[in-house]
Amino acid sequence: MGKNLLSVFALGGLNEVGKNMYAIEYGEDIILIDCGNKFPDESLLGIDLIIPDITYLEENKDRVQALLVTHGHEDHIGGIPFLLKKINVPVYATRFTLGIIENKLKEHRILRESDLNEIKASSTINVGEVEISFFKVNHSIPDCLGIVFSTPEGNVVHTGDFKFDLTPATDERPDLHKMAEIGNRGVLLLLSESTNAERAGFTPSEKMVGENLENIFRRAKQKVIVSTFASNISRVQQVVHASEKTNRKLALLGRSMVTVVKIAMDRGYLTVPKGMLIEAREINDYDPDRVTILCTGSQGEALAALSRLSTGNYRDAEILPEDTVILAAGPIPGNEKSVSTIVDNLFQLGAHVIYGSGSSSGMHVSGHGYQEDLKLMLTLMKPKYFIPIHGEYRMLHHHRLLAESVGVEPGNTFILKNGDVVDIEDSQARSTRSIPVGSTYVDGVDVGDMEFVLRDRKKLSEDGMLMIILPVNKTESTLMSDPEVISRGFVDKNFSDLRKGMNRIIVSTLEELREANRNSWNVKKKQVKKLVGQYIKDKTRKEPMIIPILIEI
Amino acid sequence: MGKNLLSVFALGGLNEVGKNMYAIEYGEDIILIDCGNKFPDESLLGIDLIIPDITYLEENKDRVQALLVTHGHEDHIGGIPFLLKKINVPVYATRFTLGIIENKLKEHRILRESDLNEIKASSTINVGEVEISFFKVNHSIPDCLGIVFSTPEGNVVHTGDFKFDLTPATDERPDLHKMAEIGNRGVLLLLSESTNAERAGFTPSEKMVGENLENIFRRAKQKVIVSTFASNISRVQQVVHASEKTNRKLALLGRSMVTVVKIAMDRGYLTVPKGMLIEAREINDYDPDRVTILCTGSQGEALAALSRLSTGNYRDAEILPEDTVILAAGPIPGNEKSVSTIVDNLFQLGAHVIYGSGSSSGMHVSGHGYQEDLKLMLTLMKPKYFIPIHGEYRMLHHHRLLAESVGVEPGNTFILKNGDVVDIEDSQARSTRSIPVGSTYVDGVDVGDMEFVLRDRKKLSEDGMLMIILPVNKTESTLMSDPEVISRGFVDKNFSDLRKGMNRIIVSTLEELREANRNSWNVKKKQVKKLVGQYIKDKTRKEPMIIPILIEI
Repeated sequence: MGKNLLSVFALGGLNEVGKNMYAIEYGEDIILIDCGNKFPDESLLGIDLIIPDITYLEENKDRVQALLVTHGHEDHIGGIPFLLKKINVPVYATRFTLGIIENKLKEHRILRESDLNEIKASSTINVGEVEISFFKVNHSIPDCLGIVFSTPEGNVVHTGDFKFDLTPATDERPDLHKMAEIGNRGVLLLLSESTNAERAGFTPSEKMVGENLENIFRRAKQKVIVSTFASNISRVQQVVHASEKTNRKLALLGRSMVTVVKIAMDRGYLTVPKGMLIEAREINDYDPDRVTILCTGSQGEALAALSRLSTGNYRDAEILPEDTVILAAGPIPGNEKSVSTIVDNLFQLGAHVIYGSGSSSGMHVSGHGYQEDLKLMLTLMKPKYFIPIHGEYRMLHHHRLLAESVGVEPGNTFILKNGDVVDIEDSQARSTRSIPVGSTYVDGVDVGDMEFVLRDRKKLSEDGMLMIILPVNKTESTLMSDPEVISRGFVDKNFSDLRKGMNRIIVSTLEELREANRNSWNVKKKQVKKLVGQYIKDKTRKEPMIIPILIEI
Repeated sequence: MGKNLLSVFALGGLNEVGKNMYAIEYGEDIILIDCGNKFPDESLLGIDLIIPDITYLEENKDRVQALLVTHGHEDHIGGIPFLLKKINVPVYATRFTLGIIENKLKEHRILRESDLNEIKASSTINVGEVEISFFKVNHSIPDCLGIVFSTPEGNVVHTGDFKFDLTPATDERPDLHKMAEIGNRGVLLLLSESTNAERAGFTPSEKMVGENLENIFRRAKQKVIVSTFASNISRVQQVVHASEKTNRKLALLGRSMVTVVKIAMDRGYLTVPKGMLIEAREINDYDPDRVTILCTGSQGEALAALSRLSTGNYRDAEILPEDTVILAAGPIPGNEKSVSTIVDNLFQLGAHVIYGSGSSSGMHVSGHGYQEDLKLMLTLMKPKYFIPIHGEYRMLHHHRLLAESVGVEPGNTFILKNGDVVDIEDSQARSTRSIPVGSTYVDGVDVGDMEFVLRDRKKLSEDGMLMIILPVNKTESTLMSDPEVISRGFVDKNFSDLRKGMNRIIVSTLEELREANRNSWNVKKKQVKKLVGQYIKDKTRKEPMIIPILIEI
């Protein structure tokens, strides 16, 4: 057995929450774990999606052997269509995860040519000298896996996203015994997720949400509207149970809710009593106290069902006084404001609204392990080396402290950036090199480097723009008539004075350049842009984008 | 004594957190309470500030008799310069609040002509038949007042911002006895602030922060950097105490920190031992364990001291490994992300960082009373009528429930919108009319209605723009040469194909219009805009702003 270099790195997921993508290389083989997306914040004006930069993989296309998918959340699968369009690598995932991926590939019209393979927690896959096996973890979506890579150099474990919920709502218990065995066989390197590394204690159990839901359902005198992530099938199952116990029909609102619930039912991850599901248009056929509505939009998304219900813009359903609305999902950081607006609107409709951040409302628990969950994983795995993954720097930092508190040697934890490589040879790990990685922006149907476009959009969005059209004599470079100024996103109460001032500056600038015999269009444009910009800034304290357009006549 | 109508309304502060401004009218007299600003969220592209819409006051200029200011926070004073430029009304405020206002008016160059009057909690002011008196409350800035309006119709009480801190860090105890007396004399209508109406319990005391600060200071082996609101003089005082006990010099970083601390020291609200304060440039003259830095930027503001320290961009000071950084202020909703980025950067510099939301880090307590504080105020005042103020709808809603729980009669609470008027006659209150109010945006030096400008900026920021320059024959309306297309903030990998497509559309559009004898410029522009826009949307799924420019030659 020839000895090869074992290398591990991230193409996304470090110093960020989102677009998770990790890679294991042994010798010539590259094995990928997950390929997620991330949603842009407000600074990325008009960008729809951010996906991992796969330049390195494209350059090493023939070496990429497999994509293993730990679970079906967007931040782990959202980049797959874009990856497969470039590199048609075999994909391995569990039955439920595959359902979500198939739906996504169908939308991108590449389902047919994709090589999808269903695996179970008990499967093994061989890629060159690497044997890949799996273990069950639980999280906030069904059918989640951790992964073990058995290499000649030693074993590498990737946890996927996880918590230890010993009383989950569905039969999705974490396989503690298998994890213990893996730890006993010896783990050279552990990659473990860090989302909640800042939070003390154990993650509360999903069971708690079920009990609280049932209490609310029993007290509700009219309709109950529950909003949660469509993929959180345990939570959906508990809403089904509560509806069953209180004799309510269940209507699903929102495209992703309908799609994911269908996948979950078809594939046996969700049990709904016969006759319970009704169409949205049938809601008004039943007494309000016989109806539950389950809908998307718990993050305040403007076009999702809950937002539209809260403003009375949903055709088939409306929220009336004394209805009960439950936000059964905490707001993701950055979404607090839009969620609050919806809560305000719901109160104004006279609804009882049950909401709150994190688990404070009793209607949400995190799918990511808190500090004690993370310590339990570290203790079960007893790794020699440790790479905290899946989180912002402060989360990775806290996760390192947790690892050291349960016995990982100081100096054996690697806090990496995307692209930083950990190489392992003769059981010694070091991180001295990195591969270049960035972010890839998706804007409409375009994928690519958008930096300069974004710079323009930002400038336009702050102070608008002024176009200055200069009709110039072709031979003598003199102005044929007054410049025409067109503004968008810029306004000033003294605009006519400004216009005169600009005209003055433009005329004298062009005159000076002509006299100095500097007749290049570029020089003229640059000079007009600079001086007009300076003038506008002095007069208005604003800096619109100035676009001079010379028209030769 | 002739009987007049008593009316109360808000010009800002309802269904929002910010730009507080309330008005009491008795007969012909209008008395104003506070005039704050609000910072825009990301949807208001390029807007610097939002202030109350004072159209109604301008229309009734001669009736406006006084502006009473409860305390010196921006959301209560930030609009004052803009108000005074329009209506030079006498301003009444306490000594510390006046210090902050004076500084602001100086920046706007209207200090000299302003009519500022210092009041104390024991002062009384008479405006027509209304006698105005005050009572001390505590909050997170010195010298805060509640206000009592004694009118022939009955007494109206406005609480200002408050909590009941019985062990404040400075001598700023709430005057419970005076409040009890006011309640005993009878309160017809109470206006009370609602910021924390959603939170159970009592607000923790500022004392707790002091004890925690001191513990951290004692354990710190290198520099201690504390970031908080400059106006939170109690917190500043506690940092001074902790520095004194651990033999540290104190440097102030950030313009507002230097300004406000100076005001507080000059006016006797802050005691700093002689020789403790050092200049920023002297920081490196002392051993790191002998230095405290107090700085602005606790909300993640990009240009403030903490942000610049966290990226190594502050000339006089730098953060080194083992330094301790304390974020002694919770992030205001909406600022979580920028604060997190700073925390990440500080960890990367090797600092110990103490942070957390709300009071979870032990380094911050709210200045706004929780539910039990609010119930205590309601119980002391025993109002017949109640208007919850200062908060989003959900906060006002919860505050109403609290009022009813301590005895305010259902139906006697008015949840208003800005501009809704409560009229009181013969001790009976009703709300049937409103005055028109909006928001006023401040953009650079411009103040006014910016709706259409904002719409343009939003569109430009999302998909950028395409300018299409059409050189047209003056007489025959035919194209003289190919259209020129200029794009900003818009990109597409097939741009040259798009250009060809657009040319085709433009040429045929102009041709058709010419044949149909429709030669108006407006029709041409409109048609080109529509068809090119449609074409671009089909091809790219993007909707840049299309600006056709016809140049007659």
